Amino acid sequence: MARTEISTLGEFGLIRHLTKDIKHLQPSTLKGVGDDCAVMNFDQQRVLMTTDMLLEGIHFNLEYVPLKHLGYKAAVVNFSDIYAMNGTPTQITVSLGISKRFSVEDIESLYAGIRLACERYNVDLVGGDTCSSMTGLTISITCLGTAKEEDIVYRNGAKLNDLVCVTGNLGTAYLGLQLLERELMVQRSTNYGNNPSAANDGQQIDAFEGREYLLERQLKPEARRDIIARLREAGVKPTAMMDISDGLSSELMHICSQSKVGCAIYEDKIPIDYQAAAMAEEMNLNIVTCALNGGEDYELLFTCDINDYEKLVPIEDVYLIGHITKPEAGLHLIGRNGEQLPLKSQGWNAFNE
Amino acid sequence: MARTEISTLGEFGLIRHLTKDIKHLQPSTLKGVGDDCAVMNFDQQRVLMTTDMLLEGIHFNLEYVPLKHLGYKAAVVNFSDIYAMNGTPTQITVSLGISKRFSVEDIESLYAGIRLACERYNVDLVGGDTCSSMTGLTISITCLGTAKEEDIVYRNGAKLNDLVCVTGNLGTAYLGLQLLERELMVQRSTNYGNNPSAANDGQQIDAFEGREYLLERQLKPEARRDIIARLREAGVKPTAMMDISDGLSSELMHICSQSKVGCAIYEDKIPIDYQAAAMAEEMNLNIVTCALNGGEDYELLFTCDINDYEKLVPIEDVYLIGHITKPEAGLHLIGRNGEQLPLKSQGWNAFNE
Repeated sequence: MARTEISTLGEFGLIRHLTKDIKHLQPSTLKGVGDDCAVMNFDQQRVLMTTDMLLEGIHFNLEYVPLKHLGYKAAVVNFSDIYAMNGTPTQITVSLGISKRFSVEDIESLYAGIRLACERYNVDLVGGDTCSSMTGLTISITCLGTAKEEDIVYRNGAKLNDLVCVTGNLGTAYLGLQLLERELMVQRSTNYGNNPSAANDGQQIDAFEGREYLLERQLKPEARRDIIARLREAGVKPTAMMDISDGLSSELMHICSQSKVGCAIYEDKIPIDYQAAAMAEEMNLNIVTCALNGGEDYELLFTCDINDYEKLVPIEDVYLIGHITKPEAGLHLIGRNGEQLPLKSQGWNAFNE
Repeated sequence: MARTEISTLGEFGLIRHLTKDIKHLQPSTLKGVGDDCAVMNFDQQRVLMTTDMLLEGIHFNLEYVPLKHLGYKAAVVNFSDIYAMNGTPTQITVSLGISKRFSVEDIESLYAGIRLACERYNVDLVGGDTCSSMTGLTISITCLGTAKEEDIVYRNGAKLNDLVCVTGNLGTAYLGLQLLERELMVQRSTNYGNNPSAANDGQQIDAFEGREYLLERQLKPEARRDIIARLREAGVKPTAMMDISDGLSSELMHICSQSKVGCAIYEDKIPIDYQAAAMAEEMNLNIVTCALNGGEDYELLFTCDINDYEKLVPIEDVYLIGHITKPEAGLHLIGRNGEQLPLKSQGWNAFNE
């Protein structure tokens, strides 16, 4: 594969190269890349803003994450935050710190993923910053979105007896990560002295067969735009909502502490994918623990008024897992035999080892 | 000085600690830190968006840049981009990647600088992302601003015979950087084996005496909000404008290429500070080259209709340096003896060494 050094283009040349054929999809975008600022006309809509930073060696490992997937995911996790407010993502800016290890073609792949996500979700890439880094790859994306004021759903609106719902299934992205990490260890231990990129392709295909869904959930997550649309069609406005990026337990704590309520969720109601369950079994992991604390699923967690129950039930891929209780009751997981276990946030603390 | 490890607070604890007493100054801010997104009401205003990434070892050296100054500068350079569109900065998000080398107190200092800049410029800190990094400090700030549609000034509006103006003085921040780098080298060569932090304070004070302004321009630049206000009061709307972050030559090329015009600027009209001139002399640097290519001055470069001449002249700290020519004339510097030198962008290419 060709390798063009970024220094041959320079900073401005690289930006021009990456952004030259960008077409805007959003009527709100008046001016994109190419000036001191992007300019938007949001008319009477409220504006939502979220940002995410991804650092090599912390959030991703390029030994098994393809750059195009990484770009796609970096954009989608921001869109997920906008949907989690019941809004619509509209624009992003992309800032990259790039070490000399990366070629123009590498950054093209990363951008191809970002732009694919933008096309699929109808979002405009309107600006950014591109600079060299001493070490590895840094990606910082900021996303704007819009919503009508009356549609916005915060974390602090859950109230006594509300239903607690999640979408999709949980723990799957975490088990995808465990699978990728395990195969990397296998490759490293069998490949010493060989060419690591070519070796063991056959073995790896075996290891991943039947587990494609786990890999997809980890490498190429989607934001639940479909659920937001279905809730709207059904006439259901959640009382509180957020996306599940750090694990169900951690997100439940955010909603309950901000809403000043407690909750009870039922172990046997937590949606689990069968590939994930099999993978957990094989790895001697408790699948419920994975689902509670795994993170990176980018599913939605929301609470709804109990009077919306009839409207909620027919909505595909939405699962009732519990209900909101008084604050003094705390946060509990009700086990399969009715036992009450206090929920703890074991969410990711990157500052701890 | 106390050193609290960030791991004792964790990611959420650190964010709470840093943002707990933030008060919003902008009526457009409906919801700041603490949900999936910040929420703004910009009513009928246009929305401006800009972003800047700063990486340790590339954009700053913590051996001589105090963290509070760094935070201040990281925010102000974004405000500068909003003013350069003739807008008003309103909100920022701050993403930080932090290695274990940094303590809670370090990040408090950085945040104190960011928040001081926000207070001075009436901007709300409404969100961000805080994560651990393998190596050093990464700062990514995205800024929103507002403007009436008819007030926005792009880079592409310069036309034949327009006046070319700059504010303040140029090359000063670059010479401040050279001074800091030189003193660092002196310290390193005299301090081997000693405690580098305590030694040579007396010598350093001597080296910096009478040069405080150079240091201030490098370490703690301001955005030219005052000029934007004065132009408005004088009834002058620039035809094109940008801030000077990469050097006058480079920015003139952006305006001329986007406006499809040429320009002629006069060497003896370029505003130079006397401390900067003396420093350049001492370092055997050509002060005009520093002014043309130095960068980081965060002054404004703008073009104006020639009919605004009378209104422009009384405005303090605005300097007419040349005029816009036909595109085929190219971009020229007219020397003190009338000689024409083609302008080249020697602006910073971080991907080249």
